[in-house]
Amino acid sequence: MRLLEERILKDGSVRPGDIIKVDSFLNHQLDVQLFDEMAKEWKRLFAGKEINKILTIEASGIAIAAIAALEFGVPLVFAKKSATTNIDKEVYSTKVYSYTHQKDYNVLVSKKYLGPEDKVLIIDDVLANGAALEGLIALVESAGATVSGVGIAIEKGYMPGGKLVRDRGIQVESLAVISKMDDRTGEIRFAGEE
Amino acid sequence: MRLLEERILKDGSVRPGDIIKVDSFLNHQLDVQLFDEMAKEWKRLFAGKEINKILTIEASGIAIAAIAALEFGVPLVFAKKSATTNIDKEVYSTKVYSYTHQKDYNVLVSKKYLGPEDKVLIIDDVLANGAALEGLIALVESAGATVSGVGIAIEKGYMPGGKLVRDRGIQVESLAVISKMDDRTGEIRFAGEE
Repeated sequence: MRLLEERILKDGSVRPGDIIKVDSFLNHQLDVQLFDEMAKEWKRLFAGKEINKILTIEASGIAIAAIAALEFGVPLVFAKKSATTNIDKEVYSTKVYSYTHQKDYNVLVSKKYLGPEDKVLIIDDVLANGAALEGLIALVESAGATVSGVGIAIEKGYMPGGKLVRDRGIQVESLAVISKMDDRTGEIRFAGEE
Repeated sequence: MRLLEERILKDGSVRPGDIIKVDSFLNHQLDVQLFDEMAKEWKRLFAGKEINKILTIEASGIAIAAIAALEFGVPLVFAKKSATTNIDKEVYSTKVYSYTHQKDYNVLVSKKYLGPEDKVLIIDDVLANGAALEGLIALVESAGATVSGVGIAIEKGYMPGGKLVRDRGIQVESLAVISKMDDRTGEIRFAGEE
């Protein structure tokens, strides 16, 4: 999606440790008008698919997924990263390894909000190793629900996550796929550019 | 807001420990069409106010605030609950006590995304003691920005948070104000009903 790629080039930056810093518009300050355009693009890309629920994971995916849910006209469920006192004990849960924090955490969804009748579009902001995404897919499968597709804002195309999920036959639509980035030169290249 | 009150009566429940459980539509599974109606109501209630940014706190406020930001046509900033490796060290921060988890946590906003030019509408899902809200107001004040108002989905009217903030002259618009609830009988009463 040219609009998102141009925004990454304009306002994003590359930091040591393979970090794409997009917190001025994607995951700290949020340009919700951009999210609305992204939502419309996913609506177009998943036009053939049956979707009655959107699933994401807290926290940085929630705003993108909420605006996508509004565009698709379906409810949003967000998976929580740890048990809180006011969530049901009746949950689906799975362990996810966080490369950012270098530890495992639990991801939970109440059994009331995911079931065999659900055709789920998973939305997240960034796809790299795919650990969080694999966790969300595992939750959908635990519930006997179907993954209708995966919508990602930014995929690191040189990391294994995207291929792992596509190889399972799941439609993954990443609106910007970074093929190469360099924190010394600041260069960011997108798939299909060379 | 009658629509939200009716939904709380229909799908909410009262749990021991003064918990209003609304996770089927407000903070785990999210009815984003309802959020869109709530956003329009806040737009009406804050019609006279200058607002160029919306501020919330992760995680359960984000979706409501994102859809409000779309309605107001302004960016959303969400305060983060702990330092992560890919947030700037240049942050405003304040300590907030969590009654749910019974401990202090840090709340952070990058200095880049809040400044003296900002007229901020704070949005959150639930207001009770007001600890999180006081933290958000402190962040706005640290930045030299102005609090234009506060929009809350559900306020516990019998708890001190709302009064504390209104006594400072801040316009607080809670779309449903619970005046009384009882976990034994399941009764929920709203302000203005008796």
